[in-house]
Amino acid sequence: MSVELKNDRFLRALLRQPVDTTPVWMMRQAGRYLPEYRATRAKAGSFMALCTNPELACEVTLQPLERYDLDAAILFSDILTIPDAMGLGLSFAQGEGPQFARPITCKADVNKIGVPDPEGELKYVMDAVRTIRRELNGRVPLIGFSGSPWTLATYMVEGGSSKTFSKIKAMMYNEPATVHVLLDKLAQSVTSYLNAQIAAGAQVVQIFDTWGGALSTPAFREFSLRYMQQIVSGLTREADGRVVPVILFTKGGGQWVEEIAATGADCVGLDWTVELGDIRARVKDGVSLQGNMDPGLLYARPEVIDAEVARILASFGQHSATSGHVFNLGHGIHPEINPEHVKAYIDAVHKHGKQFH
Amino acid sequence: MSVELKNDRFLRALLRQPVDTTPVWMMRQAGRYLPEYRATRAKAGSFMALCTNPELACEVTLQPLERYDLDAAILFSDILTIPDAMGLGLSFAQGEGPQFARPITCKADVNKIGVPDPEGELKYVMDAVRTIRRELNGRVPLIGFSGSPWTLATYMVEGGSSKTFSKIKAMMYNEPATVHVLLDKLAQSVTSYLNAQIAAGAQVVQIFDTWGGALSTPAFREFSLRYMQQIVSGLTREADGRVVPVILFTKGGGQWVEEIAATGADCVGLDWTVELGDIRARVKDGVSLQGNMDPGLLYARPEVIDAEVARILASFGQHSATSGHVFNLGHGIHPEINPEHVKAYIDAVHKHGKQFH
Repeated sequence: MSVELKNDRFLRALLRQPVDTTPVWMMRQAGRYLPEYRATRAKAGSFMALCTNPELACEVTLQPLERYDLDAAILFSDILTIPDAMGLGLSFAQGEGPQFARPITCKADVNKIGVPDPEGELKYVMDAVRTIRRELNGRVPLIGFSGSPWTLATYMVEGGSSKTFSKIKAMMYNEPATVHVLLDKLAQSVTSYLNAQIAAGAQVVQIFDTWGGALSTPAFREFSLRYMQQIVSGLTREADGRVVPVILFTKGGGQWVEEIAATGADCVGLDWTVELGDIRARVKDGVSLQGNMDPGLLYARPEVIDAEVARILASFGQHSATSGHVFNLGHGIHPEINPEHVKAYIDAVHKHGKQFH
Repeated sequence: MSVELKNDRFLRALLRQPVDTTPVWMMRQAGRYLPEYRATRAKAGSFMALCTNPELACEVTLQPLERYDLDAAILFSDILTIPDAMGLGLSFAQGEGPQFARPITCKADVNKIGVPDPEGELKYVMDAVRTIRRELNGRVPLIGFSGSPWTLATYMVEGGSSKTFSKIKAMMYNEPATVHVLLDKLAQSVTSYLNAQIAAGAQVVQIFDTWGGALSTPAFREFSLRYMQQIVSGLTREADGRVVPVILFTKGGGQWVEEIAATGADCVGLDWTVELGDIRARVKDGVSLQGNMDPGLLYARPEVIDAEVARILASFGQHSATSGHVFNLGHGIHPEINPEHVKAYIDAVHKHGKQFH
């Protein structure tokens, strides 16, 4: 762990320290759009086999770094490892989303589940973190991550993906106490899971609140934000003599940016529907911002991508002594994207970013 | 058309005139959650057969009014009637969303399509409006509607529903001029379609911009809002000596409420993720607001629904001389909802609404 970090631009931007240019990474950067990912995935046999094999998880984590000038690596894993470790039986049917064999249907189910041991059932994740950190050898920082309690709860109660969230919303509105017990167990689990990732070598952690934006404002506060706050308050914020920054990303959460920042997170992730300049004016450089190009822009020609990157950087504007911006997509990259377009995106950020620092 | 309107609470609220209590209706109120709807749908044979039969469309339009104390009826139809009339070949596979046999794939396809004649290929819709208006006999106002140009374009280019909007976004970013030609033809078509509905008896019109919220802010302005503005500017705003109010509903559009209001629409529809009181503070009673209960709340017990209706009314707050609020869900009702819960919702609005007027 004593290896010197060769590129700390990402960490510095998260902590609102000066950088030479805007750092960039991409949600789902180790993924299906890369032919080398698809080859490793085929070798593993299944998506879960890939996630649970630390060597292969390390291999796919590093693949995008070989192609692109990225400022961070992110652990390759799934957001549903915690519910799987709780005994819900996660699987991925061909061409389908995630499915749980034993979803949560009632209070008794909630009472039965416990907080998984990160170095027990989830040791494969920590092994992956250790392996990746070793193989990275200080090249760029490693991001660990987890789903938010609310997001995990939606999958656990729905039994998989959902468009209407009928089961979790029925439970949330009719039996809020039961859902709070579930969310509290999840918040404890996520806290210990992320702290174990930090102990294993993760230098930044991000919480993906993919479905927080499906809630009304009071429900977001009560069922999602409150538990992210609980996690942020319980995280180890220093390792190896460096601060470990925390990023909270609520898809559809731009309207709540002040409240998300007030959790004490170092950085708020934003989807592409909001204007970065407007959000910056609201948070007054009191928190770092991450985002927010439309993932759909990667379908466009490289020169169009270049222009949009420049527009987003300009929307954020000239940096102050206390501002921080990490460039990212507003959501994960889509599987059909041409890898050459990703190169145009990454290179455009570093090229155009310089003039704003 | 000279029949006196017996309940004009909805029209008055849209025009920000005093009312005794808050009016209420529900997007997709004529729909699958009602057993009588499912019976008529079965009789018709298919969804499109139901839409294209004015007598049956009238029958399902009136069904929710028999059960509930609703303040408006909405034409039963599909948002994709215009692309179908343009020759794209609309169908609904069992359990699937809409599908087009001949989607728009290139500039040549866009050049080929024309503006449909509302009393030609779309005469079945106008016949439905005339039939419903006659059968309503002044009981409540009738809402006509259309999809927004952007929303129609997404289906036309994707060939159906989409999660990632890969085709329309690739076209929008790579060939914006082609997409603008398409959107302009759609704006012309929607204008003439809604004006024909007004001539046939629609007393209010709503534009459903279901997918405007999938865009970045600049793209929303350029590809969605601009064409809704074009439509609003071209609509007949008076019929039978009464103003015909216009409602614009962009799902996920709460952040753009000021700009949507600036089109000259009488009312802005809001989804459930925003706080009505915050939005009201921003628009300063300069426009009527419609919304915004989470459709997922209808899974809850009647007493929970009652409390949430009261909370939303209180969030809007006491009415001024120039405020207007129409209660609605933040999106269409889900098909599995218990019809008794809908009664709890409608009755709660009228009961609790009184104290705010």
